[in-house]
Amino acid sequence: MKQPSALSALVEALRALPGVGPKSAQRMAYHLMQHDRAGAEKLGRSLMFATEHLKHCEKCNTFTEAAICEVCSDPERDPALLCVVETPADQIMLEQTLTYRGLYFVLMGHLSPLDGIGPKELGLDQLDARLAEGEVQELIIATNPTVEGEATAHYLAQLARQHAVRPSRLAHGVPLGGELEYVDRGTLSHAFGSRSEMPQ
Amino acid sequence: MKQPSALSALVEALRALPGVGPKSAQRMAYHLMQHDRAGAEKLGRSLMFATEHLKHCEKCNTFTEAAICEVCSDPERDPALLCVVETPADQIMLEQTLTYRGLYFVLMGHLSPLDGIGPKELGLDQLDARLAEGEVQELIIATNPTVEGEATAHYLAQLARQHAVRPSRLAHGVPLGGELEYVDRGTLSHAFGSRSEMPQ
Repeated sequence: MKQPSALSALVEALRALPGVGPKSAQRMAYHLMQHDRAGAEKLGRSLMFATEHLKHCEKCNTFTEAAICEVCSDPERDPALLCVVETPADQIMLEQTLTYRGLYFVLMGHLSPLDGIGPKELGLDQLDARLAEGEVQELIIATNPTVEGEATAHYLAQLARQHAVRPSRLAHGVPLGGELEYVDRGTLSHAFGSRSEMPQ
Repeated sequence: MKQPSALSALVEALRALPGVGPKSAQRMAYHLMQHDRAGAEKLGRSLMFATEHLKHCEKCNTFTEAAICEVCSDPERDPALLCVVETPADQIMLEQTLTYRGLYFVLMGHLSPLDGIGPKELGLDQLDARLAEGEVQELIIATNPTVEGEATAHYLAQLARQHAVRPSRLAHGVPLGGELEYVDRGTLSHAFGSRSEMPQ
């Protein structure tokens, strides 16, 4: 006896989700098919729509439906300040502090040579070109205070110095070993305020 | 600053999955959009296809793409034996023991009055009609040996007796408090062999 192919295909496809193994995938499939067909259809449509319409911002690399994202197209933003974050979630957290009025660059990850993620995969050639334009005066490096994040920060600081841009790092109000996404707004706001120039 | 609507709609839709909260949903959405667009599209298609094509078997209530499922349409199966299970996953586990050659009835859950799941929601009127036909001679009750499963078993046994059908229960080789889906084949095979008639 086999499962109907529509069901086994769904179970298999659900395993594309991070952290979902065969048992979880099966439970998810049964749950959706038995108790939430409307939710399943909505999820299906959202996935199709997002894969089709979600692009990367040509300036900052974050997810956007337009060519240039909302933040990058805001004329009120100070183009002399560029804050580098790992993920759009980090960017949203920083925005919620209402402290920062500069622009962003979203890496969509961090340097991880063992996983084949080098400067090119993070779009650092794009960042390099942007720094070469001369408008950016300070590069605020807000990668996570983890081993990979610090290594990425070091690389970014070197890149900034090559273009005579001042690199700075969020103050260590951010708890070491943690992830930026989970820090409270007050701490983040404080960390923005006491950011320090990176030592050689 | 807001997320693009395609992304926030996807995050929202992912919460239909059981056990997925807002943070997990966001991580899943970023992962799919950043690292696995092909997987996201495949999942989207699978969901749309499954919601459209997956039905319940008219005889046993399991998931099927046809009107009658593969097991119910097999003429080699003994129609005098009917085994009641909670989920299609349980049915698959029992099938893998290669011990049982009768038919199945799949409840798609268990009695749970507090959640509004009564006999009707489990399709027990359908089971009632089937037992009334007189072909079934033994109802093998293979609900989970949990509190809800035992309560459901008790209800099913009474239903069987109303139609002069002999109710039996899988032997307690199945560990108490556990879930059928996670039991090894050997134990399940043994439990099938020493099933016992239910006491009044």
